[in-house]
This record gives sequence, C-alpha cells and structure tokens, in this order.
Amino acid sequence: MCKTPDLVIVGSVALDSVRTPYGEHERILGGSACYAGVAASYFTQVGIVGVIGRDFPQAHLDLLASRGIDLAGVHRQDGTTFHWKGYYEGAMDRAITVDTHLGVFESFSPDIPEDYRSAPYLFLGNIHPALQLRVLSQLTEKTIVALDTMNYWIKIQPDLLHDVIAKIDLLFINEAEIQQLTGVKNLPEAADRILKDGPRFVVLKRGGHGATVHGAEGVVAAPALPLRDVKDPTGAGDTFAGGFLGYLAQSGPDLSLERLREALWMGTALASHTVQDFSLLGLCRASSESIFQRCRQIAQMVNGRVPNVRITGHE
Amino acid sequence: MCKTPDLVIVGSVALDSVRTPYGEHERILGGSACYAGVAASYFTQVGIVGVIGRDFPQAHLDLLASRGIDLAGVHRQDGTTFHWKGYYEGAMDRAITVDTHLGVFESFSPDIPEDYRSAPYLFLGNIHPALQLRVLSQLTEKTIVALDTMNYWIKIQPDLLHDVIAKIDLLFINEAEIQQLTGVKNLPEAADRILKDGPRFVVLKRGGHGATVHGAEGVVAAPALPLRDVKDPTGAGDTFAGGFLGYLAQSGPDLSLERLREALWMGTALASHTVQDFSLLGLCRASSESIFQRCRQIAQMVNGRVPNVRITGHE
Repeated sequence: MCKTPDLVIVGSVALDSVRTPYGEHERILGGSACYAGVAASYFTQVGIVGVIGRDFPQAHLDLLASRGIDLAGVHRQDGTTFHWKGYYEGAMDRAITVDTHLGVFESFSPDIPEDYRSAPYLFLGNIHPALQLRVLSQLTEKTIVALDTMNYWIKIQPDLLHDVIAKIDLLFINEAEIQQLTGVKNLPEAADRILKDGPRFVVLKRGGHGATVHGAEGVVAAPALPLRDVKDPTGAGDTFAGGFLGYLAQSGPDLSLERLREALWMGTALASHTVQDFSLLGLCRASSESIFQRCRQIAQMVNGRVPNVRITGHE
Repeated sequence: MCKTPDLVIVGSVALDSVRTPYGEHERILGGSACYAGVAASYFTQVGIVGVIGRDFPQAHLDLLASRGIDLAGVHRQDGTTFHWKGYYEGAMDRAITVDTHLGVFESFSPDIPEDYRSAPYLFLGNIHPALQLRVLSQLTEKTIVALDTMNYWIKIQPDLLHDVIAKIDLLFINEAEIQQLTGVKNLPEAADRILKDGPRFVVLKRGGHGATVHGAEGVVAAPALPLRDVKDPTGAGDTFAGGFLGYLAQSGPDLSLERLREALWMGTALASHTVQDFSLLGLCRASSESIFQRCRQIAQMVNGRVPNVRITGHE
C-alpha cells in the first residue's frame, strides 16, 4: 500500500565507514537518499527510491519508517549494500575516499512506483545521468525536479549530464563542480550559464560559507551557522538539499525568491544538525523547535536595514 | 596645517604592476593605505601615514587629496616607492607575486603626527608587527584600533604579532591566516581563540563568499555581491576594511553587532567597486547612491523572516 508522496527522492541508501578527528565508525547508516529523506521528513511526506543488499539492517529501515518515510521504492536485492569508506582531516572540508564498494548499487535501475509518478517534487540524487534521464521519463511533466551530481559524472558523462540538466528546475552544485561543468571560473557567471541551459535556479553550495540561490530574477544568500562542534560532515550537502526541498514541498509550487531564501535557511538549519554527529544521529535529534531556533540565529546574523544615515564623507 | 582625522590609516602607499585576464598595467597607484583611505573617505575624515619615494607621481597625491584625505603623515624620502608586481589567473582568488621591491618602505618607521594621536579610530595596515607596536605606543588609549596582517608575519614574527593583537579592538584576517595564526581549523573556534587574546571582534574575510564578524555577543554575516565583471581583485581586502572602519568612524564609538553588520555591508559595497577595475579606478567611481544601491542589493539577498508556518512533517 503506498500513496503519492509530496517529495520523491532517488538516490543511494548506503553503509558508510567513516573516520574523522572525532571518531571512527564502521558500516553506519548513510547515503544521499537517507540524509535527504530524513531532512525532508521534518516538513513533508517523503518517498525514497533506492536499492539495498541482503546485509542492510532492518533497524535502519525501521528508523526511516519511523520518520514517516514511505519505503515502497526501496528494493532489497541479492548482493551487498553500497558501501563507502573514507575519512576527513584538519578542517574536514574534503572527504578522502578509501574505498567504494558499489554492490547492488552497480545495477541500480530506478523504477518509480506508479503512485510516485505524479509527485509534485522530485530530488534526483547523485547517480549516473542515464539513470536520472530514465527517472525523468517516468514522471508527469508537472513535477518540479531538483538534481544533484558530482565531479565524476561531469568528467565522464558531460553530454548526458547536460541533457538531464536541460530538463530540470533546480540544480544543486558546489563551486568546484560548477566551474568544471561550465568551464567558467566566476561563480555568478557560471550560474548564468546553467540558467541559460534550462534550470530555473542554481543552488550553489559553499560548504562552511553557506549557500546562494541564483535565478533569473536575482540571487538570495544564507551563511552557514558558526558551528564549533562539527564531528562528521558526511551527508551535509544531501541534508541541506533534503531540508530545502522538503520545505518547498510543504509550501506548494511557489518558487519565489522569498520562499527559496526560507528554504535556504531550513536546509542550513538541518545540515547544521547533521554535521554535529556521525551518521543520521545529529539529524534525528532535530525538532521543529531546534529548526526554528537555528533559523532565528541565521536571521540575527544577516538581517539588517540599509542604514538610514547620510553618508557624510567626501563625495 | 593638519587637524585630527576621525580615522588614521597606517600602511603602504605603493605602485603596482598587475596582470589579470582582463589586462596588464604598470606602476599604477596601489597600497593598503590608499585603498583603505579612499574607501573610508566616503564616510569620514581620513589621515594617512605612509612613505613614498622620489618617483611617486604628484598626480596620485592629488587624487588622494581630492578625496579630502589628509596627507600630513605621508613622507617623501630619497629612494623608490614600494613596488609590487604580480598577477592573477583563473578565478583570480589568489595573487601570485612576481617581485616585491620595498624601496623606501624597507626603512618605514611610522611617526604619527601629533594631531593624529587622539584620533578615535586607527587602522594599522599590514606592516611589521614591531612597527605596529610602535604606532600603538604613540596613541591615546581611547582610540579604537583595527589591525590587518598577513601570512608572512604570522610565520616569522608570531610572538610579536600576538603582542600586538592583545592590544587591539578589531582584527581583520582571512581564513588561511586565522588557521595559521591559531592552529585551529574550525573558523568559529579559531575566532573564539583570538577573542580570548584581547580583541573585541574578529572580522573574517572570506573573499568571494563574503565576511563574518565574530564577537562575544554573537556573529553577524554578509555575503559578497554576485559580480560578473571582476577585473582586478587587488586592494579588495583593504577597501573592505577601509569602508568598514570609515563607516564606523562616521557612526561614533558604537560597536554594537547591528552597527558592525552595517559596516560589513558598506565594506562589501565598496570592495565590489574596487574589483571592477584596475588600481583605484573602480573605487573612485563609487558614490553615495551606488553604495546605498549595493547595500539594498545585499539586503534583498539576505533579509528574510523566519517562516511563520507550522512545520507539518514528521516530528
């Protein structure tokens, strides 16, 4: 039994082995669909499409289900679950991969459950662009589609990736990726280039510096929260995207700059929870109250008036 | 004849030879005191303390004077003016130095004119920490002091630099520098470390990502303006600091977070002018109107309300 979620998320469901200066954990719950799904679940009805192996613990599925996430699109197959092993050092601004074991994810061929095909929002996590295209072909045209990708696909499948990007509404991308994808170093100019290709908005992830949304009508920005207790950055980008899109899905089809700015705050608030602990432990400690409290903190950081003073110096 | 300026700036007055993807110019006006001084002159009475050689064109002094800047502290000495030669490539986020010819700057020994010693604000540009200490010893204790430094001094004079930092009110510093200075990678934590040493505020310059001010009562932030026409980043940091401090000097001794956020906007607005052309050409095209217009643009990017909606997803 399944019904149409407000936000469908297609991506990885994974087991991660992660080391940071704050600890080391083996085979903990991870994957873009899990981080994004739980983040979005604070706002809206989420359905995940993904694949797991025989080794994936039932407890993890129970956790996702306990967040109200529909798992009709998560298929268990013979083989092992996608496993990423890596670590972070120093400022932890870059993950260093030790090993990636694709397992059942290697033959992942996402089939969107019938009831999901008219969902108002879709988040296409970082998978092969051919699969992203395949998912798009299964949807009604009214779905608002957001996409994530990575340097690997930009390098080896640029043409296919451009085909996907031409069909979406929002592109989530970081600085290095947008420079690589467009060949343009200036970030606002690189975002302009993407907007010309089709998407209505580019969401530029700037890591510890926050994020900006670039659209035809302008740019909105939010800083990162000043966190002193960052333990594990894994999943921060996916959480951000999930919180961002979950908030939009709760708010309907309105993609005004004002609504997108609010979405930036929500994504930022949830990502700040994720990085404060390993796996989804920090994220699952979020609450309506803590999300609003962190949004208020962002408001206090940035909100101001243009000074109502005469500039009295030399003109 | 000279009177007490609201803001005294001690730093380099230089001739720069700069190449960027947008052009190449020889021996154009530069130096931290010039960028900061002209930026501050939009708000307040500025006096510069610096040294120039016999080769420094009178036209450049006339330009500074035309901005109402007092030059009683600028001394011409036998020898050549400080000359920096360098270039920028790609995203232009890093200056590559080809040659630094100190000239008369090598024996620069700043003497603060008598009338300057009770100025309410002082900006100590990036010079040897021993000279910075010397300047501080010449001031009344009521002066609000801001300081800039660089990786070079952090590396070779860390102890002396810590002595200076203990005596100041605001430290302007970029990410790599604060990590190097404190040995702490997490930026908010690194700022905390500095605050414990004495300064009331750390102004963290994040280049194309904007800036944040860290103080005991909290953090304020402003994004960079999304500029597509960046021609030469030289002087952006000094312009930012000059605009920031000039605005504060115009506003009196109030260092509330609200005032500091406004100062962030003003510094950002002026720095955006500087990078749009070589030397001080872009900066000198700024006007009250363009400064306010760019502040309004920042307000539109960041200002928002915490959404007045119930978070309707799973709690």
